[in-house]
Amino acid sequence: MSELHGLMRDLQKQNDSKIVFLVADGLGGLPLEKGGLTELETAKTPNLDALAKEGVLGLSTPVIPGIAPGSGPGHLGLFGYDPLDFRIGRGVLEALGIDFTLGPNDVAIRGNFCTIDASDKITDRRAGRIASEIAKKLCEKLDTIKIPGVEVFVRHVKEYRLVIVIRGEGLGGAVKDTDPQKTGVPALEPVATDAPSQKTAVLCKEFLRQAKEILKNDSPANFLTMRGIDKKPHVPPYREVYGLKAGAIAVYPMYRGLARLVGMDVLDAGQTLDDQMNRLKAAWNDYDFFFVHFKYTDSTGEDGNFAEKVKRIEELDAAIPKITALNPTVLVVTGDHSTPSKLKSHSWHPVPTLLSADTCRPDRCETFGERDCLQGGLGQFQAKYLMSLVMAHAGRLEKYGA
Amino acid sequence: MSELHGLMRDLQKQNDSKIVFLVADGLGGLPLEKGGLTELETAKTPNLDALAKEGVLGLSTPVIPGIAPGSGPGHLGLFGYDPLDFRIGRGVLEALGIDFTLGPNDVAIRGNFCTIDASDKITDRRAGRIASEIAKKLCEKLDTIKIPGVEVFVRHVKEYRLVIVIRGEGLGGAVKDTDPQKTGVPALEPVATDAPSQKTAVLCKEFLRQAKEILKNDSPANFLTMRGIDKKPHVPPYREVYGLKAGAIAVYPMYRGLARLVGMDVLDAGQTLDDQMNRLKAAWNDYDFFFVHFKYTDSTGEDGNFAEKVKRIEELDAAIPKITALNPTVLVVTGDHSTPSKLKSHSWHPVPTLLSADTCRPDRCETFGERDCLQGGLGQFQAKYLMSLVMAHAGRLEKYGA
Repeated sequence: MSELHGLMRDLQKQNDSKIVFLVADGLGGLPLEKGGLTELETAKTPNLDALAKEGVLGLSTPVIPGIAPGSGPGHLGLFGYDPLDFRIGRGVLEALGIDFTLGPNDVAIRGNFCTIDASDKITDRRAGRIASEIAKKLCEKLDTIKIPGVEVFVRHVKEYRLVIVIRGEGLGGAVKDTDPQKTGVPALEPVATDAPSQKTAVLCKEFLRQAKEILKNDSPANFLTMRGIDKKPHVPPYREVYGLKAGAIAVYPMYRGLARLVGMDVLDAGQTLDDQMNRLKAAWNDYDFFFVHFKYTDSTGEDGNFAEKVKRIEELDAAIPKITALNPTVLVVTGDHSTPSKLKSHSWHPVPTLLSADTCRPDRCETFGERDCLQGGLGQFQAKYLMSLVMAHAGRLEKYGA
Repeated sequence: MSELHGLMRDLQKQNDSKIVFLVADGLGGLPLEKGGLTELETAKTPNLDALAKEGVLGLSTPVIPGIAPGSGPGHLGLFGYDPLDFRIGRGVLEALGIDFTLGPNDVAIRGNFCTIDASDKITDRRAGRIASEIAKKLCEKLDTIKIPGVEVFVRHVKEYRLVIVIRGEGLGGAVKDTDPQKTGVPALEPVATDAPSQKTAVLCKEFLRQAKEILKNDSPANFLTMRGIDKKPHVPPYREVYGLKAGAIAVYPMYRGLARLVGMDVLDAGQTLDDQMNRLKAAWNDYDFFFVHFKYTDSTGEDGNFAEKVKRIEELDAAIPKITALNPTVLVVTGDHSTPSKLKSHSWHPVPTLLSADTCRPDRCETFGERDCLQGGLGQFQAKYLMSLVMAHAGRLEKYGA
């Protein structure tokens, strides 16, 4: 157990405080022109600015300086789990991303449909980026595969991507990718890298044998490769670590999956931010902690659409009064990482963070933006410490030592 | 050994520099009104402000973000000992708090007088908060307890609280509390949680047997429970780690005890800040390092008395010229934690820190207050690194590596 979690377990106490974590995915940004304003600085955010004035700002580093995290490590950090201690395999993340609930006996595998020639050599690693409708039907065929002693699930994700889950007692998750990462060679055999995974490798091999038979007439998707084979990591649940009953209000399945991974209840989030706000209000009395996820600050950043990201931030700002009307003890507005439109990708830049509570020590910040956050009272901090700060502001921690 | 201590041991060198650590307990604060001034910002502190202007400011985090420390971990951090590596049990702290010098063979136990009924069930866990004069006499009776093979000491603390010390070879300190934390049930038996503490548990049991006999007619204090059973942690002494001859000038026993724990000499501090300043001057040639402890910034904060805390800070400010007149090489003014009057308790907020030396790189700070500290050259740092900074400014560290 980490020292951080040990302290949280030892010092946590119960009260009737309410905590809201509003995570604007990919919130941090960059100016398009040198010396210009970022997306967050450009957006008109009167409600966030009012919170910034009375609350405390800072910049969080998701992993360590220079590391751009994926959604998994980004969120684990925010939830208080060191993303270097808790690693989530790609197969697991892919399963979480389609709302597939993984159990402790499940090995999750990301599959890629591919094209092979008569001598089994791969000619296209993505099966001509096959259409989703066709791939979905192929997954249904593969889902009929039976292997004695285990259960097998096959689910379509998108285009040539699928998830395979093998459920059985005593299966290890350490099996190497079968994707050779190039064409003109056959797919690799599944190879276990530890003893408990020998059985898993044999099962993967049998799955691939049956799959080749089933898909033989489905060119260009006449075979598949396996990647990111892994089991769900053991993550101590929120209720144990923090003593919090936590509910997640997220529209996209991957974020519901990440919330489920740390033991949050997943609530019906609807489709829009309005739906999410209504759910928050309706569930207010049932939970201590709410994780509300807003996707579009990330997707607009990934699209390189600066103006649209600004609009999405303004949309988020407009929702703030619906949260503050509920009078949360602690309200945090932050992101899991930065996604500057200029870079069209996740980045390593520290993430603007706002913490609002009656126990904030004032800093000199006037608005919620990257430059102000740099002067903020939270300073620059590792994302994994946000939860211990939040617990303190919620009055949920005893003193350490006498 | 920690990396930090390893570096200090390897790099320390001797010179005739003088270091003064002025610790204003619970120094950091909060405004009463949102956006208002803290106690330190409100206080008129011309002397501290002059030091702030020429020196360097920062904010220290005693443990990790969000953790409010007790006096033990707060001071250990300031002294350069990671408070997560060196843990002080409550029994030990209670002994330190009455100036009882613990040796390496001592097990310290916090005792609480309690009331039991005819069937040994506890009816009052604090013996009706018995008056100190009565409890003191009962402790003298208990101090007569003899157990073959060990020495036993019983000392009164305050009201229903006492300290028991069992001194003997090879005694472990891992014995569970006997306080059941509720009434209507008997006290628990002392239970060892490791092998070397089996003997300690037997000795505790024998002590309790004799104590029950001695106290049988002393209702409401007709029995006692044991808590925080522990040995003094092994703390490498100041002289070894830093090569410093250190003297402590503290009015309150607990802080003398903490200083003794790290190997400082405890000097006669008198009763007032004036007495302490006189002692500092008198002992100036005898030590390299002085720890001067000022209690009242904490006690006024705990009382929730903002105005009085402001006054106490001004009292401290008035003493500064007496220190600077001695021309210390390095003068640090800081606290072991924050105690905002608004919260009436220790808090997790970072602690304003001022370092004055000829080798300070200037920052833009003009006054000694929380908002200025946030912009200071020391940044936000873990308290345990203050001593390595001080050693550097005192010219007492060699270069690391070639």
